[in-house]
Amino acid sequence: MSQSVSPLAPGATIGILGGGQLGRMLALAAARLGLKTHIYCPDPDSPAFEVTPHKTVTAYDDVEALRRFAETVDVITYEFENVPAMTAETLAALKPLRPGANALAVAQDRLAEKGFLSSKNIPVAAYRAVGSMDDLESAVAALGLPSVLKTTRLGYDGKGQRVLRTAEDLAPAFEALAPHPLVLEAFVPFEKEISVVVARGADGTVRAYDAAENVHRDHILFTSTVPATLAPGLERQAGMIAKAIVIALDYVGVLGVEFFVVPGEGRPSLLVNEIAPRVHNSGHWTEAVCLTDQFEQHVRAIAGWPLGDPRRLADVVMQNLIGDEVEQVPGGIDGDTQPHLYGKAEARPGRKMGHINRIIRP
Amino acid sequence: MSQSVSPLAPGATIGILGGGQLGRMLALAAARLGLKTHIYCPDPDSPAFEVTPHKTVTAYDDVEALRRFAETVDVITYEFENVPAMTAETLAALKPLRPGANALAVAQDRLAEKGFLSSKNIPVAAYRAVGSMDDLESAVAALGLPSVLKTTRLGYDGKGQRVLRTAEDLAPAFEALAPHPLVLEAFVPFEKEISVVVARGADGTVRAYDAAENVHRDHILFTSTVPATLAPGLERQAGMIAKAIVIALDYVGVLGVEFFVVPGEGRPSLLVNEIAPRVHNSGHWTEAVCLTDQFEQHVRAIAGWPLGDPRRLADVVMQNLIGDEVEQVPGGIDGDTQPHLYGKAEARPGRKMGHINRIIRP
Repeated sequence: MSQSVSPLAPGATIGILGGGQLGRMLALAAARLGLKTHIYCPDPDSPAFEVTPHKTVTAYDDVEALRRFAETVDVITYEFENVPAMTAETLAALKPLRPGANALAVAQDRLAEKGFLSSKNIPVAAYRAVGSMDDLESAVAALGLPSVLKTTRLGYDGKGQRVLRTAEDLAPAFEALAPHPLVLEAFVPFEKEISVVVARGADGTVRAYDAAENVHRDHILFTSTVPATLAPGLERQAGMIAKAIVIALDYVGVLGVEFFVVPGEGRPSLLVNEIAPRVHNSGHWTEAVCLTDQFEQHVRAIAGWPLGDPRRLADVVMQNLIGDEVEQVPGGIDGDTQPHLYGKAEARPGRKMGHINRIIRP
Repeated sequence: MSQSVSPLAPGATIGILGGGQLGRMLALAAARLGLKTHIYCPDPDSPAFEVTPHKTVTAYDDVEALRRFAETVDVITYEFENVPAMTAETLAALKPLRPGANALAVAQDRLAEKGFLSSKNIPVAAYRAVGSMDDLESAVAALGLPSVLKTTRLGYDGKGQRVLRTAEDLAPAFEALAPHPLVLEAFVPFEKEISVVVARGADGTVRAYDAAENVHRDHILFTSTVPATLAPGLERQAGMIAKAIVIALDYVGVLGVEFFVVPGEGRPSLLVNEIAPRVHNSGHWTEAVCLTDQFEQHVRAIAGWPLGDPRRLADVVMQNLIGDEVEQVPGGIDGDTQPHLYGKAEARPGRKMGHINRIIRP
């Protein structure tokens, strides 16, 4: 199943779609490995443009620019799952695209994702496809209230979803969430959220980082704490599910898997909330306490290099700096903290400006 | 004594003189802190040019270029101690130069360095200034043979020095090592070499990393192992000497101190071999196992930020990849290794192409 690939030689160039903080951190990791990067992003103020001299600033559907970009690079990856299908197809025809287009197709569409996971016997919350108000009414009849109506595409950080609590919520939510189809998900009374960042190399090797326990605030990740506090066996189970996903996708690169921990009879169990075919915010802690962090791991994988060691050297908490919270750097970073700022000029509310890793133990 | 400085705001720009691997790694560290970098280096193929879009490619004595460079940056630092005095003076008149010109003056000249250290009661090998053959003969009479004749300036990696073993060696060595004056150093029958990387913040805070035990091969650093195997008390003494040096220089930034461990009556003792007013090859291990590595520590210091935590999370060995040894990456980097390649195009013999950190324990 695995692609047979020659490793990129040092000095080769990785093309990265997307110039945000994830692209920037991927470029920094590539540089440490002696690899060059070329960032493709329509936003002229992209943070990643500050860490490499090679950039393309134009729309993702600019076919001529995509072709020129492909000519200058040896492998192509991306920092976000919503790469347009045309963009992915154009590039994949010219240079290796890793992770592959199938991972994008699954992760871009909540219905496709849940269908894929269910087909592999990976537990997800009960769900129904909703194309019409009739669908929505029968879906609510099946799953009950409260439940959560979501767009199938382009949702993130709590955008593109509505909680339905009463029958009166259905029609306004259906109207508000366009385009359709939508997906209705059973409300999951979860205890906590955890995530696992997993990597699969071009040679099929699979390695997972320890699970992080995630706390959100205003629908945006606030902290990830490692180790997660979990009932016996759950951490191992989460790692096994994450590994099963990358194997089933014949995946190359790093992938984030978000889980709900739900109370069960006797012991809690896991449901997969969503997957992200890229480096993941809940994996930023790896920078501080792992010999190979998630960014280097992704670069190693897509470069056809051996995966690195995901072992963790200390207990750690990662805290996102949202909006003007970034102003606590540099004044408030004394002690056991490692700040990482993304170089964004404007600290708008809700904008991820940086993060801080703090060692808890030893 | 300390400079009173406002911390640089995120988004500010650090000017770096020198575009080699140390400048490159400083630029990567600055990026993680949300700071921009502008690299000034005459070599158009400088490795550091790959990690920032801002560069000046011209000679260090191009006064107009130096002025334009200074206008674009908020603070200026350097990756090498042989910054010409005119360059340092021109820049220091326009923007803060950290570490300061006094550190360059001391570190550029072996006689000045030994004089400075001796004046602070820091032990160095016995030495004599040598301006003529007469001087050399009386210096050899005082220090004995073997002894080591060195240029006072521009020596590195074993260049600019000759071991004198017999009386016949004096004249040819004196002829070969120009320009004069030179310095004759007593031969030190050392057990081992260690080094300490120390930092002093703009607020006067001083923090040292653990000592590394260094092995050279062909006069080039081969490995640094941490912790060093040392008689009780010596590690602490090395740290105290390193701290005393940065305090005496009213230093801001990271500085490397190389020591000889020499057998003594009852217990071994330390002599300072040399100091380097910059990040140091024997501190590359900090990348793998410290929350704040030496590059980030230097950037924090020169930016007027609080120093970070130099604590070490594991035992580690750093190995330089010299010349074609770099070809072992990526094939040979499996296991507990963290490679760092410098992006140099040509693997010439004796050229530092990268390094590998390997965790020994736990």
